[in-house]
Amino acid sequence: MTFANALYDGLFADPQIATLWSAEAQIAHMRAFEAAFSRAMGQAGRFDATLAVQAADHIADCTIDVATLSAGCASDGLPVPALIKLLKAGAGNAGQAIHTGATSQDVLDTGLALTLRETSDLIDDRLAALAAGLVDLSDRFGAVPLMGRTRMQAALPVTVADRIRLWRAPLVDHRARLTLARAQTERLSLSGPTGTGDFTDVAAPMAQALGLTTAPVSWHTDRSGIVEYANLLALISGSLGKMGQDITLMAQQGLAEVAIAGGGSSSAMAHKQNPILAELLVTLARFNAGQAGLMQQAMVHEQERSGAAWALEWMVLPLMAQATGRALTAAADLTSCITGMGTPGLQEEPHKTV
Amino acid sequence: MTFANALYDGLFADPQIATLWSAEAQIAHMRAFEAAFSRAMGQAGRFDATLAVQAADHIADCTIDVATLSAGCASDGLPVPALIKLLKAGAGNAGQAIHTGATSQDVLDTGLALTLRETSDLIDDRLAALAAGLVDLSDRFGAVPLMGRTRMQAALPVTVADRIRLWRAPLVDHRARLTLARAQTERLSLSGPTGTGDFTDVAAPMAQALGLTTAPVSWHTDRSGIVEYANLLALISGSLGKMGQDITLMAQQGLAEVAIAGGGSSSAMAHKQNPILAELLVTLARFNAGQAGLMQQAMVHEQERSGAAWALEWMVLPLMAQATGRALTAAADLTSCITGMGTPGLQEEPHKTV
Amino acid sequence: MTFANALYDGLFADPQIATLWSAEAQIAHMRAFEAAFSRAMGQAGRFDATLAVQAADHIADCTIDVATLSAGCASDGLPVPALIKLLKAGAGNAGQAIHTGATSQDVLDTGLALTLRETSDLIDDRLAALAAGLVDLSDRFGAVPLMGRTRMQAALPVTVADRIRLWRAPLVDHRARLTLARAQTERLSLSGPTGTGDFTDVAAPMAQALGLTTAPVSWHTDRSGIVEYANLLALISGSLGKMGQDITLMAQQGLAEVAIAGGGSSSAMAHKQNPILAELLVTLARFNAGQAGLMQQAMVHEQERSGAAWALEWMVLPLMAQATGRALTAAADLTSCITGMGTPGLQEEPHKTV
Amino acid sequence: MTFANALYDGLFADPQIATLWSAEAQIAHMRAFEAAFSRAMGQAGRFDATLAVQAADHIADCTIDVATLSAGCASDGLPVPALIKLLKAGAGNAGQAIHTGATSQDVLDTGLALTLRETSDLIDDRLAALAAGLVDLSDRFGAVPLMGRTRMQAALPVTVADRIRLWRAPLVDHRARLTLARAQTERLSLSGPTGTGDFTDVAAPMAQALGLTTAPVSWHTDRSGIVEYANLLALISGSLGKMGQDITLMAQQGLAEVAIAGGGSSSAMAHKQNPILAELLVTLARFNAGQAGLMQQAMVHEQERSGAAWALEWMVLPLMAQATGRALTAAADLTSCITGMGTPGLQEEPHKTV
Repeated sequence: MTFANALYDGLFADPQIATLWSAEAQIAHMRAFEAAFSRAMGQAGRFDATLAVQAADHIADCTIDVATLSAGCASDGLPVPALIKLLKAGAGNAGQAIHTGATSQDVLDTGLALTLRETSDLIDDRLAALAAGLVDLSDRFGAVPLMGRTRMQAALPVTVADRIRLWRAPLVDHRARLTLARAQTERLSLSGPTGTGDFTDVAAPMAQALGLTTAPVSWHTDRSGIVEYANLLALISGSLGKMGQDITLMAQQGLAEVAIAGGGSSSAMAHKQNPILAELLVTLARFNAGQAGLMQQAMVHEQERSGAAWALEWMVLPLMAQATGRALTAAADLTSCITGMGTPGLQEEPHKTV
Repeated sequence: MTFANALYDGLFADPQIATLWSAEAQIAHMRAFEAAFSRAMGQAGRFDATLAVQAADHIADCTIDVATLSAGCASDGLPVPALIKLLKAGAGNAGQAIHTGATSQDVLDTGLALTLRETSDLIDDRLAALAAGLVDLSDRFGAVPLMGRTRMQAALPVTVADRIRLWRAPLVDHRARLTLARAQTERLSLSGPTGTGDFTDVAAPMAQALGLTTAPVSWHTDRSGIVEYANLLALISGSLGKMGQDITLMAQQGLAEVAIAGGGSSSAMAHKQNPILAELLVTLARFNAGQAGLMQQAMVHEQERSGAAWALEWMVLPLMAQATGRALTAAADLTSCITGMGTPGLQEEPHKTV
Repeated sequence: MTFANALYDGLFADPQIATLWSAEAQIAHMRAFEAAFSRAMGQAGRFDATLAVQAADHIADCTIDVATLSAGCASDGLPVPALIKLLKAGAGNAGQAIHTGATSQDVLDTGLALTLRETSDLIDDRLAALAAGLVDLSDRFGAVPLMGRTRMQAALPVTVADRIRLWRAPLVDHRARLTLARAQTERLSLSGPTGTGDFTDVAAPMAQALGLTTAPVSWHTDRSGIVEYANLLALISGSLGKMGQDITLMAQQGLAEVAIAGGGSSSAMAHKQNPILAELLVTLARFNAGQAGLMQQAMVHEQERSGAAWALEWMVLPLMAQATGRALTAAADLTSCITGMGTPGLQEEPHKTV
Repeated sequence: MTFANALYDGLFADPQIATLWSAEAQIAHMRAFEAAFSRAMGQAGRFDATLAVQAADHIADCTIDVATLSAGCASDGLPVPALIKLLKAGAGNAGQAIHTGATSQDVLDTGLALTLRETSDLIDDRLAALAAGLVDLSDRFGAVPLMGRTRMQAALPVTVADRIRLWRAPLVDHRARLTLARAQTERLSLSGPTGTGDFTDVAAPMAQALGLTTAPVSWHTDRSGIVEYANLLALISGSLGKMGQDITLMAQQGLAEVAIAGGGSSSAMAHKQNPILAELLVTLARFNAGQAGLMQQAMVHEQERSGAAWALEWMVLPLMAQATGRALTAAADLTSCITGMGTPGLQEEPHKTV
C-alpha cells in the first residue's frame, strides 16, 4: 500500500497508517462484521439462536488466509464471497447463521467504517500534537520579526507568531471538521443485496457492538460521507502543504528566515542542505488534491451498486490515508527540527494596520 | 462565464447563477464592502466620522465602469486597485476615509462571501424543490416494481420508490451540509495587507451590516472554507450525476424502465429520443469532480497571500457554481418530464431480505 | 467563453482565441462541413448533382441565428438538429441533398477539427515568437551570472543563459509535438450515425475541400487524438508555468534576480510591485493540468457514441484553449517587460562540472 | 507498489509490472548508470583510467541493501546519496572515480529511462497481443448483428465486427504513439548538479552502453517527455475503459449482447454473474485519468530542480504503470473469456448509411 517502491519508504511511508489499512486489519474488521451480524440476527430471532452464537464464535476463532481471499477477489471482484465460503466451510450447521441476508458491500463498507474510525483517532491525535508543537514553536520564536510577504513580495513586517498562527488555525478547525466527518463515516452498513433490506431489529445492536451508528438509509450508492472524508484528508494535507511551501521559501538563501537541523544532503554538493520535509508536504498536498478529485468521480454509481465506481474508492482512499498520515508525521518532524525563525536584520516594529 | 460558447447555452447555461456571479453583482458586493468599511471605521473613530459617512454615501452612489476595472485587473492582477482609485477620485476629501487599512483580498473575499450567500440561497431552494419533486415522482410511480441492479446486473426486484429514495436522501443531507458550509463561507474578510490587522472594533458592526459573521482569524491563506464549499458543490452534482446515470440506463431499449417526454431528437435518426438531460447530469458531475480537485490544489498558498493559488479559485469556483446550478435545473426538468417508471413485466413481490 | 466574469478579462482573456472558438466561428465551420458534404455527395452521384450544388450554395449563403441553435441545443443536446432543420427549411427541393447520411457528430467533430487547425496556427506562431523573444532575452542578459538553485537552495553559479535555455527548449519541442498533434486532429469526421458509414468516394474530396485529411476509421468514440491535443495544451502551459514559477522566485526581495517593468500595483502597499504575469503563468498551468485530467476522463465513451463523455469535451477543451492562449500572450508580455536578470553580487566563474 | 492492500491483489496486481518497478530493479538501474558513468569518464580521460575500471567493476559486484537506501531516502529525500556513500565506502581508491560530476537526478532519471524502456517493451507486447486477440474475437463473432447504440439508445444495426474494430483501432494507434513516446523517454540524463554540465565526450558512449539516446539539453526540469509518456498510459487505459464500459453495458440483462465465462460470483445472489473485469477496465481508466492530471501538475518545477514536483512523479508514475499494465492483462483475460456476442433477435441487414 505504498506509492513508490520500498526504496522510498523512508520518504513516503507511514507504518502506523499502513497497519490500520493492512489486509490483516481489514480481515479482522470483516470478521467483526460477520460475528456481530450472526449474533444480532440470532438475538432478533432471525437466525437460530444457538447456531448464531456458534457461528459468531467460529467467525472470531477460525483461520483466514490472505492469499485465499486475494484469489477470490480475482474471480469475484471483491474478497467477500471467498471469505463467506471459508467461514461457512468450517462452521458445520452454524454456517446457515452466517451472512445470509447481508451483502458483500455491507461487509466491506462496515469494515471501512471501522478502519476510518481508527484512522480518525490517529489523525486527530496527530493534529492535536502538531497544533501543540506549533504553539511550542511560536513560544520559542514567535516574537521575532518576520517580513510579511504577499504574492511572494515583501509586504510589511509581521512576527513569526503571526505566520505560525495561520499554520495552526486550520489544523484546529480540521479537528472540528473531523468530528463532523466521523459522524458521516462511522456508520454501520446493513441494507442487503439491493440496499432495501429491513434490518431495524438487527442494525442497532450490531452497530452498538461495533462502536458505530446506524444510517437512516442505505449508503451503498450514496458515497457523500466517504467522499467528504476524503476531502477532509485533502484539506489537512493541503493546509500542511501551505506550511511546507512557506518553509521552502523561508529556507532560501537570500531570505534565510528559517533554520532546520539535520537531513537533506546532496550527492553532488556538500554545502547544500535541502528542506526535504517541507518539500514533501507540498508534494503530498498536491497528490491528495488530485486524488480528492478522483474520489468525487467515484460518486457516480449505477443503480443499486456500481462495481466500477466502488473499486475506484478502493484504489484511491488508501493512498489518501497514507499521504495524509505521512504529511502529519513529516510536519511534526519538521516542526521539531526548526532551530530558528525570523527575517534577519528586520527591526521589530508595531504593526501599522491603518 | 460559460464553459463553451453561446451555441451551447441551451444546454449548459444557468441564467440565475450567471447573474449572481456577474461582474455587476461582484462590483456591487465590493462597493458594499467599502461602504460598510468606511462607515464602521468612522463609527469606531478610526476615520473622521463625517468624512466616513460622506465616503460611504459616495461609494454607494457613484458610477463604476466594468471596463475600467477589467483594464486595472490587467495591470494589477485584480480589480481592486482600479476600483479604489475610482472611488477615491470622485470622493474629494472623503477619499481618505476609503479603504485605508484594508487590503484587496478583504474586498474580494468579502464580495465572494456575499456571492456565496446568494448562491447558497438559490441552491438550497433548488435542492428543496428537487427533493419535493422526487417525493412527487415517487408518489406517482413508487409502487411499481423495478429490477434492482447491482454491478449493472439484475439482482432482485425492488420498487421505483426504493430507487428514488436513494436519489433523494443525499439531497436532503446536502441541505444540512450546506448549512454547515454557509457558516464557513459567509464570513467577513478583514485582516489587512498581511492578515494581521486588528479590527476588533470594526469587524463586528461591519459583518452585521453585510449579513455576515466575523472570522476568528484571517482566512486570507486558509482556503479550507471555500474549498469545502466547492467540495459540497461537487457532492451535489455528483449525487445528481448518479441519478442521471441511473436514468440513462433505465432509458435503454431492452430495459425500458423510464419514459421521458420531449426533447432529444437526432439529426440522423428520427426514431431516437435521447435522454440528454440525464446525460448532462453525468457530464456536469464529472466536470465538477475534476474542478474540485483543482480547488484542493489552490490550498497551497505562499506566505501571507498567493497570487497564483488565489487566482486559480477565481477561474474554477465560478465554473463549479455554474455547473452545480445547471445540474439542479436539469434534474428538476428531467424529473418533471418523466412519464413512467418501472421494469416492464416484473411481478410485484415482497422483498426477501433474509 | 471565459472562466470568471468580465471583471477579470484583463487578466484571463485571450480575444484571438475567443474569436476562434466563438459561436459564429463554429457555425461557419458547421456550414463548411454541410456545404462540402452536399457538394461531394453530388459529385459522387449519391445526391442529385444539381440539387447538391443548390444545397451547397444555400448552406453557404443563408442566415443562421445563434439563438435558434442554442434553443435547439436545449432540446436536442447539441446544436446540429436545429441547424439542419434551418438549412433544409430554406432550401426547397435541395433540402434532400443536405446532411442525409451524415450525423451530428460528423458535423461537430469536423467543425472542431477546423477550429483546432486555426488554434494550432495561432499557438504555433506564438510559440515561435516566444522562443525568439527568449533568444532575445538571452542575448541581452545571458552572460550575467545567476545562482543555480535546486530544491530552492543555492547550488552552484550558472548564467542567465543557462536558465533561459531550459525555458526555451521545451517550447521548441512543443512546436514539433504540435506538428504531430495536428496530424491527429485535422481530420475529417465522416462515418454516419453509428460510425460505420462507407464514405470512401466522398471523404477524400470533402477532406481536401476543407483542408483536412481523412481518418482510416471512425473517431466518433476514439478520442485519443483530441485528448492528446489537450495534453499538449497542458504541456505548453505547464512549461510556461515553470518559467512563471522561476520568475516569481527570482523577483523575490532577498534574491532580486529579475527586474520587471510596469504593472502589479497593490491597493494597500504603494511600495509593492507584484509579478502578476509570472503568477498568472503558474495559475494557468495548474488550471490546464486539472482540465487535462478531465479530458482523459472523457475517453470512456459508451457504444457508438456517448452523449455524456462527449459533452465533457465541449466544456473542457474550450477552457484549455483559452488558458493556453492566454499563457502564451502572458509569457510574451512578461518576457518583453524584463529589464534585468541575474544574481546580484555573484562573481562570474567557470562551471565546475567535474 | 499497489493501491490497496494484498487482499485486492487478485484484482489490481500486475506482477510483471511490479517486478519492473521494484526497488531491486531500480537499484540495478542506478548501478548500471554509475558503472557506465565511471567507465565512460575513464575512457574520456576525466577519471583515472584504471580506477574507473575498478570502480565500474566494484559498482557491478558489490552488495546494496534496500533498507540502507530507504533510510538514506528518509534523511536526504532521495536514495542516491546513501547509494553513493555505500559504493564509495567499499571501493577504496577507486571511490574517486565514482559519481563525481554527476548528480542524483542524473542517476534517478536515467534509471527511470531504463525502467520505462522495459515497461514499454511489456506494454507494446501486450498491446500487440490484445489487438490480435480482438482480431480473433472478431473472427469468431464479427458477422453477428449488433444493435448500434448512440447516447445509450438503440440507433441502427451494426455488426459485432464494427464494434470490435473501434476497440482495436486505438490500440494499434497507441503502439505507434508508444514508439514516439519511447524516443522522448529512453534518454540518458547527464547534466550535473545544475543541469549545465558539459558531458559531450561522455554522454554518447554512456548512452550507447545503456541502450539509450542522448538528450540535446538537460531534461532535469523539462518533464514533457515523462508527462507525455504518462498521458499515453492514460490513453491506453482510457481506450480499454471504453471497451470495458461497452462490455458492462452489453452484459446487462435486457440487452444480453455478450456472454462471459467464469468469475463474478456474488456473496448474496447465486444467480448473478458480474462482469468484474469489464468494470475493472472502467475503474482503471478513471484512476489513470486522474493521475495523468497530477503528472501535468508536476510540470511546474522551480529553478534548476524541484524537489516537490519531482517527488510527485515518484508517487504517481508507478501507480499509472501498474494500472495500465493491469488494464492490459484484464482486457486480455476478458477477451479470452467471451463466449458469445451480438444482439439477440436482431436480423442481419445491410447497412443503410445514406
